[in-house]
Amino acid sequence: MSDKTKDNTVKDYDGTKTPLQTPDERVGYAVIGLGDLTEEELYPAFGRSARSRLVALVSGDKEKATIQARQLGLKDSDVYDYDHFEELEKRDDVQAVFIVLPNSLHREYTERAAKIGKHVLCEKPLSVSVADAEAMVEACKAANVLLMTAYRIQYTPHHQAAREILDNGKLGRAKLMTAVDVQTEPNEGQWRLKAKLAGGGSLLDVGLYCLNTARFLTGEEPYEVFAYTHSTEGDPRFTEVEESVQFTLRFPSGLISSNFCSYGTSKHRSLRVLAEKGNLLLDPAFDYTNLRLIRDTETEVTETLVKEVDQFALEIDHFSECVQTGQQPYTPGEEGVQDQRIMEAIYRSAKEGRPVQLERFEGRDVFRGKAPTQPGRERS
Amino acid sequence: MSDKTKDNTVKDYDGTKTPLQTPDERVGYAVIGLGDLTEEELYPAFGRSARSRLVALVSGDKEKATIQARQLGLKDSDVYDYDHFEELEKRDDVQAVFIVLPNSLHREYTERAAKIGKHVLCEKPLSVSVADAEAMVEACKAANVLLMTAYRIQYTPHHQAAREILDNGKLGRAKLMTAVDVQTEPNEGQWRLKAKLAGGGSLLDVGLYCLNTARFLTGEEPYEVFAYTHSTEGDPRFTEVEESVQFTLRFPSGLISSNFCSYGTSKHRSLRVLAEKGNLLLDPAFDYTNLRLIRDTETEVTETLVKEVDQFALEIDHFSECVQTGQQPYTPGEEGVQDQRIMEAIYRSAKEGRPVQLERFEGRDVFRGKAPTQPGRERS
Amino acid sequence: MSDKTKDNTVKDYDGTKTPLQTPDERVGYAVIGLGDLTEEELYPAFGRSARSRLVALVSGDKEKATIQARQLGLKDSDVYDYDHFEELEKRDDVQAVFIVLPNSLHREYTERAAKIGKHVLCEKPLSVSVADAEAMVEACKAANVLLMTAYRIQYTPHHQAAREILDNGKLGRAKLMTAVDVQTEPNEGQWRLKAKLAGGGSLLDVGLYCLNTARFLTGEEPYEVFAYTHSTEGDPRFTEVEESVQFTLRFPSGLISSNFCSYGTSKHRSLRVLAEKGNLLLDPAFDYTNLRLIRDTETEVTETLVKEVDQFALEIDHFSECVQTGQQPYTPGEEGVQDQRIMEAIYRSAKEGRPVQLERFEGRDVFRGKAPTQPGRERS
Amino acid sequence: MSDKTKDNTVKDYDGTKTPLQTPDERVGYAVIGLGDLTEEELYPAFGRSARSRLVALVSGDKEKATIQARQLGLKDSDVYDYDHFEELEKRDDVQAVFIVLPNSLHREYTERAAKIGKHVLCEKPLSVSVADAEAMVEACKAANVLLMTAYRIQYTPHHQAAREILDNGKLGRAKLMTAVDVQTEPNEGQWRLKAKLAGGGSLLDVGLYCLNTARFLTGEEPYEVFAYTHSTEGDPRFTEVEESVQFTLRFPSGLISSNFCSYGTSKHRSLRVLAEKGNLLLDPAFDYTNLRLIRDTETEVTETLVKEVDQFALEIDHFSECVQTGQQPYTPGEEGVQDQRIMEAIYRSAKEGRPVQLERFEGRDVFRGKAPTQPGRERS
Repeated sequence: MSDKTKDNTVKDYDGTKTPLQTPDERVGYAVIGLGDLTEEELYPAFGRSARSRLVALVSGDKEKATIQARQLGLKDSDVYDYDHFEELEKRDDVQAVFIVLPNSLHREYTERAAKIGKHVLCEKPLSVSVADAEAMVEACKAANVLLMTAYRIQYTPHHQAAREILDNGKLGRAKLMTAVDVQTEPNEGQWRLKAKLAGGGSLLDVGLYCLNTARFLTGEEPYEVFAYTHSTEGDPRFTEVEESVQFTLRFPSGLISSNFCSYGTSKHRSLRVLAEKGNLLLDPAFDYTNLRLIRDTETEVTETLVKEVDQFALEIDHFSECVQTGQQPYTPGEEGVQDQRIMEAIYRSAKEGRPVQLERFEGRDVFRGKAPTQPGRERS
Repeated sequence: MSDKTKDNTVKDYDGTKTPLQTPDERVGYAVIGLGDLTEEELYPAFGRSARSRLVALVSGDKEKATIQARQLGLKDSDVYDYDHFEELEKRDDVQAVFIVLPNSLHREYTERAAKIGKHVLCEKPLSVSVADAEAMVEACKAANVLLMTAYRIQYTPHHQAAREILDNGKLGRAKLMTAVDVQTEPNEGQWRLKAKLAGGGSLLDVGLYCLNTARFLTGEEPYEVFAYTHSTEGDPRFTEVEESVQFTLRFPSGLISSNFCSYGTSKHRSLRVLAEKGNLLLDPAFDYTNLRLIRDTETEVTETLVKEVDQFALEIDHFSECVQTGQQPYTPGEEGVQDQRIMEAIYRSAKEGRPVQLERFEGRDVFRGKAPTQPGRERS
Repeated sequence: MSDKTKDNTVKDYDGTKTPLQTPDERVGYAVIGLGDLTEEELYPAFGRSARSRLVALVSGDKEKATIQARQLGLKDSDVYDYDHFEELEKRDDVQAVFIVLPNSLHREYTERAAKIGKHVLCEKPLSVSVADAEAMVEACKAANVLLMTAYRIQYTPHHQAAREILDNGKLGRAKLMTAVDVQTEPNEGQWRLKAKLAGGGSLLDVGLYCLNTARFLTGEEPYEVFAYTHSTEGDPRFTEVEESVQFTLRFPSGLISSNFCSYGTSKHRSLRVLAEKGNLLLDPAFDYTNLRLIRDTETEVTETLVKEVDQFALEIDHFSECVQTGQQPYTPGEEGVQDQRIMEAIYRSAKEGRPVQLERFEGRDVFRGKAPTQPGRERS
Repeated sequence: MSDKTKDNTVKDYDGTKTPLQTPDERVGYAVIGLGDLTEEELYPAFGRSARSRLVALVSGDKEKATIQARQLGLKDSDVYDYDHFEELEKRDDVQAVFIVLPNSLHREYTERAAKIGKHVLCEKPLSVSVADAEAMVEACKAANVLLMTAYRIQYTPHHQAAREILDNGKLGRAKLMTAVDVQTEPNEGQWRLKAKLAGGGSLLDVGLYCLNTARFLTGEEPYEVFAYTHSTEGDPRFTEVEESVQFTLRFPSGLISSNFCSYGTSKHRSLRVLAEKGNLLLDPAFDYTNLRLIRDTETEVTETLVKEVDQFALEIDHFSECVQTGQQPYTPGEEGVQDQRIMEAIYRSAKEGRPVQLERFEGRDVFRGKAPTQPGRERS
């Protein structure tokens, strides 16, 4: 194997190279919440980032956090528990926090972070209610810090390529988008099944992928929703939150979006768009790796081979770029608030057994900031 | 290549052999309506059948019919025009008619056939309204002839295998069934786009595949439906009938069925069932050939290789067997009437913007006759 | 379903229409040998042909032949046994014979047909030796009748499309072609396993598909071959003929072709071409239906959806056209002779454990006649 | 997202958990050669390992090495250039070296490492000649250190699952194994295209995957080989080493293995085994991620979903376990020597235009150590 000279860059998924910033140039993050996602995805993502670095851990379990810190080359003093969170204020090397806590805690930690002047990258869903979500946007605005909803799929090449195919018109007008995001939540005690912590069931977690991706791929906002919820009778997992939701959205262009999410079904994640001259399939959609993007016309079936990238690194680096330049993120807090509004309408429709109207918005990408210059990452 | 002795049978799709009846033993058919389906599918199907034979053609275009008759080895005197249809009464070798006319003519020809004592195999949809469909059932009952709705998919191995997989419980409880049947109807002048002839748009044609298959695979009857219809503004094809329908059905077991049909979308036909322990995919579903049946669990993806058969031959031979034995067909007129009821409810829901309730039925296969002894065909 | 007027044509696989000739205009065929292929493929193919018709059957089993004749709308007097074959001379409506007999009988019936002035379409392999094959070509030349080797794959859209893709240069230079055609021959008593009738084992039957397709796709002739044969020790099926052959061919362009055929292996038929800028896959290759043609490059995987056609009808109609116009078939006897030469070299290489040289030929399509004007079929 | 307590383990690909050793318990490695493989695969692999840690870097480019060291949390004093390699002797925390240098340097660094008492994990191919490879085995034996050939594929779940399927007999006797490993080596100046550094062309690099996997999957040793090499005339990349090799191996069980490797062909890596009752496909085979393992029988096509793991971590941890326990690696130096012998026979066959005999070995896994207790990793 070769020992050839390498320049100090990371290769981007389109082949271009991003110069790696030196540690001092990078945006430093404190991660709050050290669950599976943090350990399995975020730690490696920081290792593959070009403008971000992990400099502090915040956790309720100091022992675990300390072990992890050592593995990461951090000092014991880089570990904070929830009570001492505000001490991060003194840390100039921490410019941003990444909130990876149960949904109902997003508001509290966003507000606490804003108060000590840290920018906030917050896992989806932004919160558990429209009111909370709006309060988070307000708090960050007041503190003059940035707020980004961590909608990973909007930063990933396969989903971006799907949007481009729909935009370029070769498939003609899209008529239906049908998305499924289901999985088995086996553990009765999981916080996701507790109304107080999760704020809802499968809709707020996996269903939000369907919803947010429908909005992202069309660039439009739905004006009407109809939904059914369903929980298997007698299943002890679904006493506080719903098991499944089937929801249908109508978009101004005439497109109908039909979606299904569930916590009681073997894992499957896919999305299909049926258009005049062909159809587009993401199967799997939404996943961290191995996404497949396939187009069907009457004469050809084509899979576009999109290079695999670290989706989390792209997402984090976009936020770092915003922090460094002061620009609004592509998926700011407002983008998360809008999904919260639609999810509330979905629950209302299911409860009242009738379609529910939503505020109409004209134009595209109403709640989004400037798109990443290059898909997912800027190059200088 | 071999000249080895062959016995006089047709091989069935499960490898067993059906003895070919001699011409005199077979049920003789007059086909009414000589369009594409008749020419491309039904003529070869009679050639592959074991208990059916084609003995007369009924058409408005005598010249075309005569050319086709000669190619089929029939005599010129085996051709009838619509005005002389009743002359078939004298033909003892014609025991049944196969109606392949535009939907709105189904009732008239069913009643005329019943009057002259011929059994009726009628293409789907059974008719254009519940009232007409019920009248057809009545007419056949009064005349003591059998009436079968030609629901091909209920006689075909892939769809039957899908039903068996759901029944055997290995995938656990089914939570969602999502089906798509869309195609482009390019020709403004086509009878399918004329309200008077077709009685409706994509729902009555391709949408009915989704609906009927959902009922077939579950064995249940839906108790509620919600629907949206949509026609692209300004598209001259969709001035009389709807372009697309998105409809959601609720079944007693808790299963939700989400369906989309359209005449304005590039061809796609698939069906997926999401269940507790895996999911089941037919892609394509509904087609005449090349169906694929795939099961997914957490550990395996399995495509069951079902032998290809002539689906129309299976369907016709089932009806012939009913004629010979006097038993009720698996998909009698009543099965068609029930779909007609649900389709009327779908249109009503779309029009009124609210879910519509349907009569509740307990038990399985409420409207079906005895299932074919062996999948699709009896062996003696 | 529609009863709309249809013109009197068959739709070709590229969408154009071929006018159906009237029965009198068509080339009349006697089929010799009524095994599975004849019954399951050739009878339907004549039904789908545009310039061919089946008018006589020749068989050793008169009873079976008579039943089949009646089903086909032929008279009892259209059935001949082998002893009365020469009576076909008087039949002006029989212009050609289609020989579908065990390999070792091909020469005899070709010579007998030539003697009575009938054109010969002969199943592959043309014969069981170079000497016999050359004699057949001579006999037909002397009698001034056409001889065509029934190389179906050279008349079928998927294989033709594969050749076009390689020709158009978009994949760059082809470096390797690897083909597999294996199946299980379960029946010890089958004529294919008898040296006297078959003239060889898997090579002459399935292996010939690999060989002939390699020559067809490249248009070149191999100049060297190396081969291994193998028969499982103690397997009673393979006492007279070989079970498997692995053979490697070298072509003038530098392409290496690696092939495997077997009678002792679960069915699989595929072909892959590895080229500079991508690769081409036929999987399955060679089959009668459901062929799939897939291209892979670094950025895309594309399946070309080629319309399904009756491959046998295309093949037979090409020969009928040659009979009607006097032109040399695309795959004349000479094409079959060349494969016979290469197969003899394959057996010699395996026996002597060394590469065997073949006569070198420059240019493309050295042994082929004019290609069908349109893929597979001429239109007037 | 969750902050739930996690135990200190890594999840293994079969769901079991391996306890993470503490830094002091782990085997410390110096990596020699900091090319793409090292940077992109080995650094992350050490991060995912359970009993291995990276403690020193050896490179000719000190600046690059220092930057990488800092990113990895190493000190500047952990970087060594080639001249100071022997200083590692003093480093008690370095028990093993991982050689990732051009092939022709493998012997030198193995011998130097052995001399200073370090165990050697050496990238494949073990060396550039049988003589060199045997010398390496001797040197390590003499110095009483372990030598392992880094045959990653023998430690990876998909390839192990393929071997198990062949072993369990459900597919019956395997008759053919056909493997392809081709790619484009675009860069004329690359060391892989220099005879002195690489010791050969595509065979020693990608072809070795085909060869080693054929031996691994069968557990047998080939007794005869026949080969063709080919280089495109005038291609400046292939003046020193061959572009492509087609080689056929015969195994004692009767299985024939047909292989193709190339540096002049668009990337493709697959392997198919044709057996009595079905066939087995790895497509892609050999890759670092996204391998697919598919079985075909007459009735089903089944893809086994094997969990993705870090293949390099499995490989390295196996060697660490051997270092800790003193057992012989599964793929010791001897395993590499045997491939070297076969590759020399392949080159000889191609040069002399005849099959070449190899020493016959009875029994299975003649050159392998004890298999990893659990696929790829031991659990205590």
